[in-house]
Amino acid sequence: MKVAVIGTGLIGTSIALALREHDVHVWLADADPAAAKLAADLGAGDLLPETRETPADIAVIAVPPAAVAPTLADAQAKGLAKNYTDVASVKQLPVAQARQLSRDLTCYVPGHPLAGREKHGPAAARADLFLGRTWALCPLPETSDEATEAVIGLVRACGAVPVRTDPATHDRWVALISHAPHLVAAAMAARLEEAPGEALDLAGQGLRDVTRIAAGDTALWMQILTANAAPVAEVLAAVAADLAEAARTLADGDDPDKAVAALLDRGRSGVARIPGKHGGAAREFAVVQVVIPDQPGELARLFHATGAAGVNIEDVRIEHSPGLPVGVAELSVRPAEAGPLLDALEAGGWPVRR
Amino acid sequence: MKVAVIGTGLIGTSIALALREHDVHVWLADADPAAAKLAADLGAGDLLPETRETPADIAVIAVPPAAVAPTLADAQAKGLAKNYTDVASVKQLPVAQARQLSRDLTCYVPGHPLAGREKHGPAAARADLFLGRTWALCPLPETSDEATEAVIGLVRACGAVPVRTDPATHDRWVALISHAPHLVAAAMAARLEEAPGEALDLAGQGLRDVTRIAAGDTALWMQILTANAAPVAEVLAAVAADLAEAARTLADGDDPDKAVAALLDRGRSGVARIPGKHGGAAREFAVVQVVIPDQPGELARLFHATGAAGVNIEDVRIEHSPGLPVGVAELSVRPAEAGPLLDALEAGGWPVRR
Repeated sequence: MKVAVIGTGLIGTSIALALREHDVHVWLADADPAAAKLAADLGAGDLLPETRETPADIAVIAVPPAAVAPTLADAQAKGLAKNYTDVASVKQLPVAQARQLSRDLTCYVPGHPLAGREKHGPAAARADLFLGRTWALCPLPETSDEATEAVIGLVRACGAVPVRTDPATHDRWVALISHAPHLVAAAMAARLEEAPGEALDLAGQGLRDVTRIAAGDTALWMQILTANAAPVAEVLAAVAADLAEAARTLADGDDPDKAVAALLDRGRSGVARIPGKHGGAAREFAVVQVVIPDQPGELARLFHATGAAGVNIEDVRIEHSPGLPVGVAELSVRPAEAGPLLDALEAGGWPVRR
Repeated sequence: MKVAVIGTGLIGTSIALALREHDVHVWLADADPAAAKLAADLGAGDLLPETRETPADIAVIAVPPAAVAPTLADAQAKGLAKNYTDVASVKQLPVAQARQLSRDLTCYVPGHPLAGREKHGPAAARADLFLGRTWALCPLPETSDEATEAVIGLVRACGAVPVRTDPATHDRWVALISHAPHLVAAAMAARLEEAPGEALDLAGQGLRDVTRIAAGDTALWMQILTANAAPVAEVLAAVAADLAEAARTLADGDDPDKAVAALLDRGRSGVARIPGKHGGAAREFAVVQVVIPDQPGELARLFHATGAAGVNIEDVRIEHSPGLPVGVAELSVRPAEAGPLLDALEAGGWPVRR
């Protein structure tokens, strides 16, 4: 298999690195030759040769939204690849432009990997960026099954989970889960511009998390937001209305439970709907907490005990206080198995929390 | 030195664990005896004895805001300690109530460590929770220098940086950096309540970060928000106005650069003002990645292998790739142990990622 990556920023280079782990032959190109060379130096592949004996199996167009269609048309004119996909965060704009500029859409599978970092450029790339993440694919009515299957293979090779939808639905979904949250983070972060430095010195992890994505590139985000304006505006207007009502209720001291506690509760139930990194439907597990000595062999001893109890551990977290001789293992199990596991561990002398 | 921790939740138990590293004698108490017992099992100290020969040097009141003053008055009546501090996220409310309930404020130093996690309870406690974080102290006009110095010593023993201010200023600052961000996260998360499940399946790290703190406890946050209503309302009203204007401009398609790009730029400069963590570097671990079949017994087999290699696992994360029959276990170990562990696992036939 041979893949051409056009645009060696964070996403393009990460795709190349992920494919290299499967020994895919990768060609790299970027409008900035230094970016392509850095990606090559990182082991992401070889620079795209001037002349090629055979086309690539797939070309990944990893450029900003407005540049996708021109880049696709140019690549097609040169016979760069048999099939094409892109990674832009909006899908209706590049598809509409491709309908204008491209002679053949049978080989084009619009795509969008739902992964990113607040850093950008090839140096920030990671082979595991897509591991366990979803990757939207929006094959067009014209797109051939062969092209779609080829791109699904590429997505799976990157460790991601393909999710098929259409451009309009995709854009409505990402307005909610990505584009509106970006502007919400920006609006919160904007309040910090004039804040006293001493106040910012007190900032904890919560503020950092809420505002982290606001550090993104304004020009790229303006392309994304204006290309998906109506669905984003709808979400933002609703968030603004809820916040304005909460502000009014708090300022009036007038039964804040009504608006504010209700908003907090809705927020809790909303955040609980985001699937865990296991993806798919969020399975409910019971968590059994066990205090374990912080020394070699204790985890093996604990898992031997859980195995002897016939209980399958779905996930494990170790909460560890550096410097202390114990930690807490949090074992996720099916709810029906929590009771028997607690009994078995307690009988075996493990300090469990009831 | 002897410290009594009243309230062994996340913050109280973390303080106790941090103090134990300095061989401070810690007494533990909680309205829920099981929580105090788990904290004691974790090595956070001894259960508070019914009768005590001498008072503690400091009592840390680690209970929700509205419970601080009654708990303080009760502890003072029992002669529990020479000096007192609390950890509530607002300072004007407990101070005003303490003025009503407490006979002596010379020994009370209102405090607020700027650290937390979205988890709660003693099992989530960490001795390093405060390392490099700021810790606001708001000594009152009545507070003795001796009490303030004693509490500053406790803060430093926890690895935190004391920041002196007054209750009103504190509350204005945390409205901006903590309380308003909580409601902003909740308002964004509330939009997810009615969203299609497929849209949420696409959610990436950005949405998780923006909304993470919205998972907090509604009752505790209502105490905090209503106790700091006016400053929080002011910040929220400004955020709501910016978001409403961005929504209007995007919907109208009318020169979005003016409002939207300006808001993104202000967000970027706001987020850039948040200082990095103060000094106190977290311990660096090396991460060894092992691909594990997603089936019963595999974790036990893996931890048996790590135990046999004599390597202590400091932390473990399991990344499942939905739809794939394997997961990736990320084992955190001391850097010097990563090489030997990789060798041992590879020799045992485990697919490790070099």
